[in-house]
Amino acid sequence: MQQAIAILDSGVGGLTVVKEVMRQLPREKILFFGDSGRAPYGPRPADEVRAFAKQIVNFLMRFNPKMIVIACNTAAAVALHDIQEMVDIPVIGVIHPGARAVIKATKTGVIGVIGTVGTINSGAYERALSIISPHLKVYSLACPKFVPLVEKGLYKDESAIETVRESLEPIAQADPRMDSLILGCTHYPFLAPLISRVMGPGVTLINSAEETAREVSALLYHKGLLEKESTRPEHEFMCSGDPVLFRKIAREWLEMDVEVTRVSLEEVGQPQ
Amino acid sequence: MQQAIAILDSGVGGLTVVKEVMRQLPREKILFFGDSGRAPYGPRPADEVRAFAKQIVNFLMRFNPKMIVIACNTAAAVALHDIQEMVDIPVIGVIHPGARAVIKATKTGVIGVIGTVGTINSGAYERALSIISPHLKVYSLACPKFVPLVEKGLYKDESAIETVRESLEPIAQADPRMDSLILGCTHYPFLAPLISRVMGPGVTLINSAEETAREVSALLYHKGLLEKESTRPEHEFMCSGDPVLFRKIAREWLEMDVEVTRVSLEEVGQPQ
Repeated sequence: MQQAIAILDSGVGGLTVVKEVMRQLPREKILFFGDSGRAPYGPRPADEVRAFAKQIVNFLMRFNPKMIVIACNTAAAVALHDIQEMVDIPVIGVIHPGARAVIKATKTGVIGVIGTVGTINSGAYERALSIISPHLKVYSLACPKFVPLVEKGLYKDESAIETVRESLEPIAQADPRMDSLILGCTHYPFLAPLISRVMGPGVTLINSAEETAREVSALLYHKGLLEKESTRPEHEFMCSGDPVLFRKIAREWLEMDVEVTRVSLEEVGQPQ
Repeated sequence: MQQAIAILDSGVGGLTVVKEVMRQLPREKILFFGDSGRAPYGPRPADEVRAFAKQIVNFLMRFNPKMIVIACNTAAAVALHDIQEMVDIPVIGVIHPGARAVIKATKTGVIGVIGTVGTINSGAYERALSIISPHLKVYSLACPKFVPLVEKGLYKDESAIETVRESLEPIAQADPRMDSLILGCTHYPFLAPLISRVMGPGVTLINSAEETAREVSALLYHKGLLEKESTRPEHEFMCSGDPVLFRKIAREWLEMDVEVTRVSLEEVGQPQ
């Protein structure tokens, strides 16, 4: 029985991480849990998000995964450390890979971070960045309208560009030296073409999904945990909300058919 | 006393890794050893390269480093595993970070690798790539004329473009779907502008120096070894060959003044 990489998210946003892990690590089996019944996490208090994340990790541990990926910036920002303490397998969040990638990408040292209210208020990116590199100039902006656009499947609608433009205005105008922008929410790659139109060609978008998958690959290698045989892993998708809408978005984004199992929060277990 | 990241190379090529580690991890102290007295490693037999690498690592361990970076593709290709067995600190080579980066970068799955005769003959990139991703199409080419251009400081001469063009012709013509090329030798970033001119804008160059620095950052983080205080680390540079030429290239490439200490091979110790 192939051990899976367990990936959790507040909803469908983590599918951007799933897609990249599938692409960059095609031998690896993925076990995904999207907490769409309680999405979005962004506006919730930190303690609540932490409790939800721990509850889901406890549930996922029943499946004996080899690694946990917190594919939700809001949850990673407040719960990464607790979850690393809680389990004895490697745990990776989406914050630090994005921070390392933007440090690699920037030439000017002036960067932007956009995310949910929870992520931006936590200051997690600023901390992750300044520990490594003390001289960066970082502009942060919460974009609370973005996740609902994606969770409702409206990210391809023409009206979305106006929401994106209005939301980004403060950071688009902040500093002409800004050359990189972290998409600090796993939902945002769905909106990347629109974000790029607003920010212009001089700003490189850092996709935390791609970067996290890349670090999952590195970490599995360094821990000796890479799957070396399988070529057709059987992924599993679970969500706590409406599986029909979840499946529709998953099929569209992953460009493949997937079965989605609805798991009730009673089955998941008590919040921690 | 700040523990250093020890970086070793056959000569000046590893300075591309040094530059990126300095840029991406400005708090970290670097201890560099360039074996310029015995460069290049590329045409040497694998056993000899392995013995040299082990000898230098033994020497560097006297300085109590926190990590070893084999910043020479030829040495990493044949000695990474032996050195990982030999010491009890993390050891990272330049092959696997480049492999993971090209997997992230390619959209078509058709990629190229250029390196020294030793690196290409070892098949190390093909192995590192196929373990992770079984469906890539990989074209490899040895470019034995590139390292001498760099070691002699001729990489900015106008005549260099002709050498680069002739050398790359087989891989530039190999497959129109090729969208990424690994610079599988730490000397090659010195020639990147010329290589890019020959390969054209449709081919992304994967700089193993940048990618290795990025993984050094990730690995230090996951091991809890990041330096969190220092802002002015005092780097140390040593070489086994002519320190005057070494210093000239180091100053030009790193854009800062550096002192270079010549260390005789007798001081380094017996080959292993």
